[in-house]
Formats: sequence, structure tokens, C-alpha cells
Amino acid sequence: CYIQNCPRGGKRALSDTALRQCLPCGPRNKGRCFGPNICCGEELGCYLGTSETLRCQEETFLPTPCEAGHKPCGSGGGTCAAPGICCGTEGCLLDSSCDQETLFA
Amino acid sequence: CYIQNCPRGGKRALSDTALRQCLPCGPRNKGRCFGPNICCGEELGCYLGTSETLRCQEETFLPTPCEAGHKPCGSGGGTCAAPGICCGTEGCLLDSSCDQETLFA
Repeated sequence: CYIQNCPRGGKRALSDTALRQCLPCGPRNKGRCFGPNICCGEELGCYLGTSETLRCQEETFLPTPCEAGHKPCGSGGGTCAAPGICCGTEGCLLDSSCDQETLFA
Repeated sequence: CYIQNCPRGGKRALSDTALRQCLPCGPRNKGRCFGPNICCGEELGCYLGTSETLRCQEETFLPTPCEAGHKPCGSGGGTCAAPGICCGTEGCLLDSSCDQETLFA
């Protein structure tokens, strides 16, 4: 499940170091799910509600929590998802703090 | 140009009825550009910063203003862009007010 949305009483207390990355998605599986309807990759950009995101629904039903991305951005708990794009589980916004090679530092 | 971003002194004062829809984009040209990096379609979902959005850069350089979508949503001047998705020129958020057939009413 997406760490932000895991069921209560689940494993949200797991330390961050134990978190796996959310399911792969998109062309050549080069993306990662950022939410049930969001798939992003450094080389891909982001897909919202497209056929590329269908697989990301599955993550909701997995029992262990996952995180997507690392570098925090925006004001809503998002992380840098692709060059210039910051995503949370609810959407994506252009964000210059996600530009450049610092992306996945 | 995107109506929100047209150069000052341009044709922003044109009445809304004169606005054309922004450039088509995406698979089978079934989407419309919602910003320089955003392409969405009712049947497609939304693409942010992907290869599908490259054409949307062109719109920035067209002299007449365009609008994308019709139904207002969100707090930042966005419009419903695909089922359950609200977009402005700066990004897209999941938005239940964009669900359903009322989308492009």
C-alpha cells in the first residue's frame, strides 16, 4: 500500500529504512507508482489516470507499505517524481526544485 | 498561447467566446494541451512532462490565446481535464468534482 494511505493498524510504524519502492509501471517498467492513478519515471515524465497507471491500483492492496521517490517537495508531502515534477498520491505539480540532476539525490 | 500565460499587451482581453481550444496532443490527437507540459483527454487521462506533451510547448508561441477544458475546478483556476482529474497550466490533481459524465458539460 502507499505509505500515506495504508489501512490503520497496519505497518505504518515501520522505520523508513524498511520501506520498499512502490510497484514499477509504465513503458519498459521504467516508472514507479506514486499513487493509485499516478506513474512517473525520471526518463518518462508522469502519467495520471492513463493506461500506464492501471497497474498502480494493485499497490493499494499490498499489505506492506511503500514509498515513491525520495526527495521531498511541495507542501503536501510530495516527492520529486520526474524532472521538474513533484507528485503526491493525489496529483503532480510542476516544481523547479525537482529540476536537474539533484532529482534523485 | 495559454490564456493564463499570454504575453502582456497581447490579446488577453478577447472575450471568452473567441477563445479557441489549445492544441491537440497525445495518442490519436485525442487530447488537448492544458499547459506547456500537460496533455489530457477525456478518454486518455493526463500526461505531464512525457513525450506526449512535447507538442504542447508550441502553443506557448502562438499569438492568439487558447483555453483548455471548460468546467472550473480546484482553487487555482483549473478546469476538469479527464475523469477525476483537474488541471491548471502548472499541474494536475485528483478531483472528484471532475468525475462522471458532467465532465465536459
